[in-house]
Amino acid sequence: MDNYVRIFDTTLRDGEQSPGATMTSAEKLEVARALAKLGVDVMEAGFPAASPDDLEAVRRIAVEVGNPTDGSRPPIICGLARASKNDIDKAWEAVQHAARPRIHTFLATSEIHMKYKLKMDREQVLDRVIQMVGYARSLCEDVEFSPEDAGRSDPEFLYLVLGEAIKAGATTLNIPDTVGYTTPDEFGALIEGIIKNTPGIENCIVSTHCHNDLGLATANTLAGIRAGARQAEVTINGIGERAGNTSLEEIVMALHTRRPVFNLATGIDTTQIMHVSKLVSNYTGIVVQPNKAIVGANAFAHEAGIHQDGMLKNQLTYEIMRPEMVGVTQSRLVLGKHSGRHAFKTRLSELGYPLNETDLDKAFERFKALADKKKTITDADLDALVADEFYQPSEVFVLDGLQVACGTMGMPTATVRLRGPDGATHIQAAIGTGPVDAAYKAIDAIVQAPSTLLEFAVHAVTEGIDALGEVTVRIEGTNGYHSLNAQKETERSRTFGGHGADTDIIVASAKAYLAALNKLLVVTGKYGSAETPATQGLTAWSRKE
Amino acid sequence: MDNYVRIFDTTLRDGEQSPGATMTSAEKLEVARALAKLGVDVMEAGFPAASPDDLEAVRRIAVEVGNPTDGSRPPIICGLARASKNDIDKAWEAVQHAARPRIHTFLATSEIHMKYKLKMDREQVLDRVIQMVGYARSLCEDVEFSPEDAGRSDPEFLYLVLGEAIKAGATTLNIPDTVGYTTPDEFGALIEGIIKNTPGIENCIVSTHCHNDLGLATANTLAGIRAGARQAEVTINGIGERAGNTSLEEIVMALHTRRPVFNLATGIDTTQIMHVSKLVSNYTGIVVQPNKAIVGANAFAHEAGIHQDGMLKNQLTYEIMRPEMVGVTQSRLVLGKHSGRHAFKTRLSELGYPLNETDLDKAFERFKALADKKKTITDADLDALVADEFYQPSEVFVLDGLQVACGTMGMPTATVRLRGPDGATHIQAAIGTGPVDAAYKAIDAIVQAPSTLLEFAVHAVTEGIDALGEVTVRIEGTNGYHSLNAQKETERSRTFGGHGADTDIIVASAKAYLAALNKLLVVTGKYGSAETPATQGLTAWSRKE
Repeated sequence: MDNYVRIFDTTLRDGEQSPGATMTSAEKLEVARALAKLGVDVMEAGFPAASPDDLEAVRRIAVEVGNPTDGSRPPIICGLARASKNDIDKAWEAVQHAARPRIHTFLATSEIHMKYKLKMDREQVLDRVIQMVGYARSLCEDVEFSPEDAGRSDPEFLYLVLGEAIKAGATTLNIPDTVGYTTPDEFGALIEGIIKNTPGIENCIVSTHCHNDLGLATANTLAGIRAGARQAEVTINGIGERAGNTSLEEIVMALHTRRPVFNLATGIDTTQIMHVSKLVSNYTGIVVQPNKAIVGANAFAHEAGIHQDGMLKNQLTYEIMRPEMVGVTQSRLVLGKHSGRHAFKTRLSELGYPLNETDLDKAFERFKALADKKKTITDADLDALVADEFYQPSEVFVLDGLQVACGTMGMPTATVRLRGPDGATHIQAAIGTGPVDAAYKAIDAIVQAPSTLLEFAVHAVTEGIDALGEVTVRIEGTNGYHSLNAQKETERSRTFGGHGADTDIIVASAKAYLAALNKLLVVTGKYGSAETPATQGLTAWSRKE
Repeated sequence: MDNYVRIFDTTLRDGEQSPGATMTSAEKLEVARALAKLGVDVMEAGFPAASPDDLEAVRRIAVEVGNPTDGSRPPIICGLARASKNDIDKAWEAVQHAARPRIHTFLATSEIHMKYKLKMDREQVLDRVIQMVGYARSLCEDVEFSPEDAGRSDPEFLYLVLGEAIKAGATTLNIPDTVGYTTPDEFGALIEGIIKNTPGIENCIVSTHCHNDLGLATANTLAGIRAGARQAEVTINGIGERAGNTSLEEIVMALHTRRPVFNLATGIDTTQIMHVSKLVSNYTGIVVQPNKAIVGANAFAHEAGIHQDGMLKNQLTYEIMRPEMVGVTQSRLVLGKHSGRHAFKTRLSELGYPLNETDLDKAFERFKALADKKKTITDADLDALVADEFYQPSEVFVLDGLQVACGTMGMPTATVRLRGPDGATHIQAAIGTGPVDAAYKAIDAIVQAPSTLLEFAVHAVTEGIDALGEVTVRIEGTNGYHSLNAQKETERSRTFGGHGADTDIIVASAKAYLAALNKLLVVTGKYGSAETPATQGLTAWSRKE
């Protein structure tokens, strides 16, 4: 058995399935690029049978991220498919454009799932697995099979199903603890039993896929790896349904920090972790709590006394990892009012935003405006500024003006001016329970896209009362826009996130709401059936002009 | 060995030590009450030697929570002390008022800590442990000893130190993985080795204390318990320094959900978990991420299709715990405009807020005002309303009026009127980079307490654009207010949190900032040297009148 653990990232599939994590096709592409730079071995780009938009998003990732032009080894691009011909065809349609495509198909093997969800008996399940794995293999050389809810399946039946899947052509066998039910001892024993008892498994990769319902996903995954699994399915920040999936960053840093114990390597460039973590948090609107291992704001927090001492040895009394290792930059102050275009460009490039000259001009203009208001501009400010300026869906309505009066005397009032898809400007005033409510009501009066606000959050990007405020919102279209959940076979109502940044949080709130509404309008096809395909990174995205 | 696992909660000590988690004495008392209701066996109420305020907070908890008047079994109230006479005296001074007091003393035993932090050799460490455990035992029958950084200590030396601590009178031996470095196999083996090799350990309780730096705290704690530990040191929401401590809720629910595997019980009333989780998150300002196990907003999220089906069996295909078990109420709509005082009182009482008649009148008035603005009032709204109305530090300055104008045309302006400690009203106008900045500058001009804003966050309490906005801020006094960290022996700069709720987020922002400033003024003794001692719950607290 080799000592290399393949990192299979499913942020774009299982992660994106969590409530509110819906990303646009352009956002998915950007995350896929960041994952490739991070060095993941496989990325599950989506569930192509869910909808034509989902298929198209996976196809774009296969084309653009699955075929690097810089000579680097391409990541495997994987598409999920239920054990049906239609799903497998759709997955292949999407991933075949990648240099290294993979089809991942699954079928439940636990008694409870077979009886209540599939309504199939063991023999029927076995037959279906043989047929569909075989069919996938007839299309694609790289086929992964998962017995869903393996954690609660009869091990003897599992060995049989997996053995037949191997004969039918599966090259990776993924063992999911679908409901996050097992303990590390149990999960380790499950993997050990599978490796010992499944015929033909010596020529396959065994993989783990754990959920965190009891807080044990990381430990279960590590137990599986120690028992011989050589692929770990993970997500950035551990996002995913319910309590989420195993965190990529925790698995990678545990293997890295305790190298002598595990004696295993991954292909991850750990210094990219923090950047990808922030990117995913921004796009999904799913916050990372300060006490989250590895990527939480406090994970590496130190007190003044310790730093002043400055001795590395002394630091090791309370620190088992260096923050730089995961890309946490220690310097908080980076740029100010007098920083030039060159310094600005260099810093953006270091942060992973290689803007072209036109985009750089626009970004620099925003930077200068911000520097006029705010004494120091940190990396976090730059992240927020770039996200606000460039990482937005195609704009249908653009905020052209906003005026607000509010306070304790009641009657909060907002006046909003928008430029619409017809090029005309529209103006509306409204009163509300507060300034945000008033602004949103005024926007609603113009945009006329009925929706429910599910979440609203503001945080200051950096310290100081002059800080840039970043607003994230999540809305659900009242008329419903549904997408198929691969496992539960239920239609889920899609929700749409938006973010906006400004030193005025009411302005940022209006921008965020408008971004979410624009996403809703574009995705539901009310204005333009899909986003314009990106050709090369940021530049092709629709921008505010 | 019995099959009862003692839950030792250190939210008020190790949890409160995390950046920004500083709580006032009144907040600590309220959390202590909630912990007692939750059913923790031991609560570590603080580190009395840190400052006179810390001692006083522990003393109040010992007096008021350590002596229940309703006939319930009192929780053990524990105070932390370094291995010194002074610290132990202070701890005893604070906890002796409890019906069941405990002194918890510690000394590091790892080579790196002895060499670089303690600058002591093994013999000196052993001598100090014998003397100080003996001294603690001469004051208190219940003495806990922790060999700090046990996870990186030489096991043979550990057995020796622990054996001598037992001889000197220790009754509980707590084994900390101080830096969150071990794997479950290692930590389980450590506990097993200690139980096997330490003379006299059969008459003591062995305890675990794990940190989550690699995401393994829960698994390590469970491994320790399976190896024979019968006390687990945990915090609510897993808060604590860096990536935090083991989560109370994860340990309790893992033991509960997998009862047949562990065959162990705790004394926790699991239906209180969600309420305590929210209380701690509110007071510390440390958010819980949606994908946090057990207490995250998505932990029990389901999709429409599943609910409509309604079959319990079918639910079990993707659900291993019932949300009601941790106190998640399924009904989202609870009260509206036409709800009466009785329904309001009943719901508050169910939520754990047993207000007296005067407080109820005030709360009902606020409720009615809110119901005029907002169609439906949920439990979350009530939590925010009660927190905003009652759970505030003594007020020095009170917000009397606020008027704001802002928008894209620039020049955001705020006018603020405050009533000061002298009873006089003060009014100031200021411009800022945004409406919050402007309001804070106007407040600063009146209050004159130099501080730095470290964090600012707003979230909508519930869905809908008419939602109540809850703002949390964290500030640091520019002139510094320091408190001693027990382990690192460094002074840490204390920070102060504040929260405010209003349908107008600018008003909520002003309230939150003022609450934090008031906390700073009270704690630093600028106005009144300490809060007025509480006599019975909420009623004695200083309120807005």
